[in-house]
Amino acid sequence: MKAIKVIDGKAALQEAEIPTIGPNDILIRIKATAANRADLMQKKGLYPPPPGASEILGLECSGIVDAVGNKVTSRKVGDEVCALLAGGGYAEYVACPEFQAIPKPTNLNWDEAASLPEVYATCWLNLFMEGNLNTGNKVLFHAGASGIGTAGIQLCNAFNCESFITAGDKEKIKFCIDLGASAGAVRGDKMFNEVQGWAPDGFDIILDPVGANYFEDNLKALGLEGRLIIIGLMGGMEANIDLGHLMMKRQKIIGSTIRARSEELKKIVMNELHKKVWPFIESNQIKPVIHEVLNISETEKAHQIMEENQNIGKLVFSLGN
Amino acid sequence: MKAIKVIDGKAALQEAEIPTIGPNDILIRIKATAANRADLMQKKGLYPPPPGASEILGLECSGIVDAVGNKVTSRKVGDEVCALLAGGGYAEYVACPEFQAIPKPTNLNWDEAASLPEVYATCWLNLFMEGNLNTGNKVLFHAGASGIGTAGIQLCNAFNCESFITAGDKEKIKFCIDLGASAGAVRGDKMFNEVQGWAPDGFDIILDPVGANYFEDNLKALGLEGRLIIIGLMGGMEANIDLGHLMMKRQKIIGSTIRARSEELKKIVMNELHKKVWPFIESNQIKPVIHEVLNISETEKAHQIMEENQNIGKLVFSLGN
Repeated sequence: MKAIKVIDGKAALQEAEIPTIGPNDILIRIKATAANRADLMQKKGLYPPPPGASEILGLECSGIVDAVGNKVTSRKVGDEVCALLAGGGYAEYVACPEFQAIPKPTNLNWDEAASLPEVYATCWLNLFMEGNLNTGNKVLFHAGASGIGTAGIQLCNAFNCESFITAGDKEKIKFCIDLGASAGAVRGDKMFNEVQGWAPDGFDIILDPVGANYFEDNLKALGLEGRLIIIGLMGGMEANIDLGHLMMKRQKIIGSTIRARSEELKKIVMNELHKKVWPFIESNQIKPVIHEVLNISETEKAHQIMEENQNIGKLVFSLGN
Repeated sequence: MKAIKVIDGKAALQEAEIPTIGPNDILIRIKATAANRADLMQKKGLYPPPPGASEILGLECSGIVDAVGNKVTSRKVGDEVCALLAGGGYAEYVACPEFQAIPKPTNLNWDEAASLPEVYATCWLNLFMEGNLNTGNKVLFHAGASGIGTAGIQLCNAFNCESFITAGDKEKIKFCIDLGASAGAVRGDKMFNEVQGWAPDGFDIILDPVGANYFEDNLKALGLEGRLIIIGLMGGMEANIDLGHLMMKRQKIIGSTIRARSEELKKIVMNELHKKVWPFIESNQIKPVIHEVLNISETEKAHQIMEENQNIGKLVFSLGN
């Protein structure tokens, strides 16, 4: 099969073996996959795949079930699915545990369906399972125009919460507000002043891919019993913390990634997405946000767009498969 | 009534008004109360009572229900109770919401019963509700010989978890090991080396009253998906944090206090204590750990013992009431 391999730090389309499947796995013939910031890190050698995962980039896909292991009960050959992957998505075929694949929303095409698993699984895990999101909560998303941000805004709308965002420019902020965010601020020195004005009592949840640069301001902007969920470190790792503030406000700081989690946890997340989020997608209340669909051979171009923060929403790769 | 008031930073027995009760409150004639580290802070003006709470020191008591508000349903005059208080325990009478009082364990005397509410409520809230303690978890308690520590060790035993402690001297460590802790280390430069040896994969929960001085070492000693719960700041507030480590290990840092929590939360905690912990107490599997019972007029003496970390377990005050 064709697959993207990393050669001298660059993504290149190469020949690879079709993966073998274990008894609880399915083999998916991939129709489309999508880029994630983790892919850029992995390409640089900074984010090795978890033990047992494919060395090939790619954390999500849409496609058709091509073969099933002998203990698989929930999927059959020919099923149209979306899947959350621990790796291997930038390829014509991928193997994954059966429960990490759920039915493709019937109203979406393959490209749209491929844009969903990673960002919705990440948002579901962090907002609902880790962050205990409740009706009426105020949520702040940094990088609001990212895949995660645009998914998060729509989930807040669907579940009657209020979302606020920060982003790199005014066009992105307008996009997020049109999508349902209550307000947005452009990245810069005075950004957090604006942010604090939106929630004088503090946010209930902040979903943060930035890390150190925003850390102290994030904790100040967080309310009583607020949850700061760190899902990325684009702004560094080393920070100061005022434990007195944390204790008095009874706040939580949660470090979170999804890729290295157990299959059991991923099964729960995907099952909840299917039951609780897919209905909003199938009724068009939640829509995929796609910046551009490229051919899988254009991986480097897509990564460049992401590296330069030019995208609003997801960068999708068609496999032409 | 007699009550302890703070005059020029010292506790002194004075005359005070018997508190009035609201429709959902009960009035308790106090038989015994107990000292907590928060009392020392409050005496110094560093920990003001939450809005609406009594200015009188004292976060727990045992006693007899003396009057009930007209909407009270769960308690009646004459009931023998233990209560978690937002303040007012160092007195002959105290008013509190009915659900913060639960029946006194039938096998305990008043002094023993007064030693339970604050430490068991704190441990229940933090280990089980905030920390999601699971069977087989490894838990580290700093200040293992404190009221909280000795309660935590016994809860770990009762719920099939393993506990480890640090403390100020060998006598305290021996006491904790006799009580059920698996190992203990004396406070000092090499303490965390020893601590890490007990749990090479890291602890599941660390319950920490120290704060800054232990913070970085605590996070290193914490395992994958471990929870560091900060309940005190005896070792300062300002610390450094490595968010990369936090994220890769998917750890949680939780700032927690119980005093200023909602009545609704306290009701849940006390109800769970009554249902799930009181049976262990009534079967003598969990025992009160009391350093000394003093008369309420000896408040300063008791506080001195606590300030100097001389106590193993609780300092209880008899009211002679």
